[in-house]
Amino acid sequence: MELLKQAIIEQGRVLDENILKVDSFLTHQIDPNLMNEIGQHVAQTYKDKGVTKIVTIESSGIAPAVFIGLHMGLPVVFARKQKSLTMNSELLTSEVYSFTKQVTNTIAISNKYLEEGDNVLVVDDFLANGQAALGLIELCKQAGATIEAVSIVIEKSFQDGRQLLEEQGYTVDSLARVISLKNNEIEFID
Amino acid sequence: MELLKQAIIEQGRVLDENILKVDSFLTHQIDPNLMNEIGQHVAQTYKDKGVTKIVTIESSGIAPAVFIGLHMGLPVVFARKQKSLTMNSELLTSEVYSFTKQVTNTIAISNKYLEEGDNVLVVDDFLANGQAALGLIELCKQAGATIEAVSIVIEKSFQDGRQLLEEQGYTVDSLARVISLKNNEIEFID
Repeated sequence: MELLKQAIIEQGRVLDENILKVDSFLTHQIDPNLMNEIGQHVAQTYKDKGVTKIVTIESSGIAPAVFIGLHMGLPVVFARKQKSLTMNSELLTSEVYSFTKQVTNTIAISNKYLEEGDNVLVVDDFLANGQAALGLIELCKQAGATIEAVSIVIEKSFQDGRQLLEEQGYTVDSLARVISLKNNEIEFID
Repeated sequence: MELLKQAIIEQGRVLDENILKVDSFLTHQIDPNLMNEIGQHVAQTYKDKGVTKIVTIESSGIAPAVFIGLHMGLPVVFARKQKSLTMNSELLTSEVYSFTKQVTNTIAISNKYLEEGDNVLVVDDFLANGQAALGLIELCKQAGATIEAVSIVIEKSFQDGRQLLEEQGYTVDSLARVISLKNNEIEFID
């Protein structure tokens, strides 16, 4: 998606070979116009696929997810992340390890909002090691829901998230695929 | 705002005299159409007020905030909540006590995204004791920004948040004001 790539090139900051910071339009400050364009773009791709629900994870997944939801006319559910969790029979839960923060979080969605028969578009801001996406997929599987695809705003294609997801049979659809951050330069695939 | 009140009446669950759960359209599952209507409504109120930035707090503030931002053509910044914080000279921080969770969080916004000269519309999903809003206002003050108003989706008017904010001279503008949850009934002001 050209508009997104432009924003990444103009505003993204390469902190090291692995870290791309886009906190001016996605992860801290949010550009609602860009998010709206993302919503329209993704909705166009999935409009005839029988998706019933958008599932994401707090916090940076919420902005792209709600605009995708708007343009598809679908509800959005965001998983909550918690260090510890009061057990609750209503909750679907999964463990997600963050390589960046070196911490394991429990993520949770109420079984009221993810059900058998749902066909889910999983949405997240970044795909790196795929742990968050796999956690969300696990929640969908627990609910008996199917996964239409994993829709990502920015994929770090030099990490193994896409491979892990594709090996398990999931479709990964990223709006921008960054193949390298070496030499302080942002290089895309396509 | 009628559409919001309808959603609260039809979908809100009164857990006790103090707790109204709206996790089917605002705090867990999100109704993007309703958020879009909220965005249009709030933008209409503030379009000529010289607002430069929408400031909210993760996670449930993000959805209403990004639609307000879209319809006002303004960037949105969300404060992050953390138990502990790596000190960082770039961060504006404030302490926020949650009466519900009985825990103090540090909230933080980068000083790159909140600056002197900004005129801020503070947005949040709920107003109860006002602690989150006061924390966000504190971050704005540290940045040298001014506060146009505090825009709230659902105000629990039987708690003292509005009074605390008004005593300090801030305008509070709530789309739905719940005055009582007694006897398992949701009663509004106006």
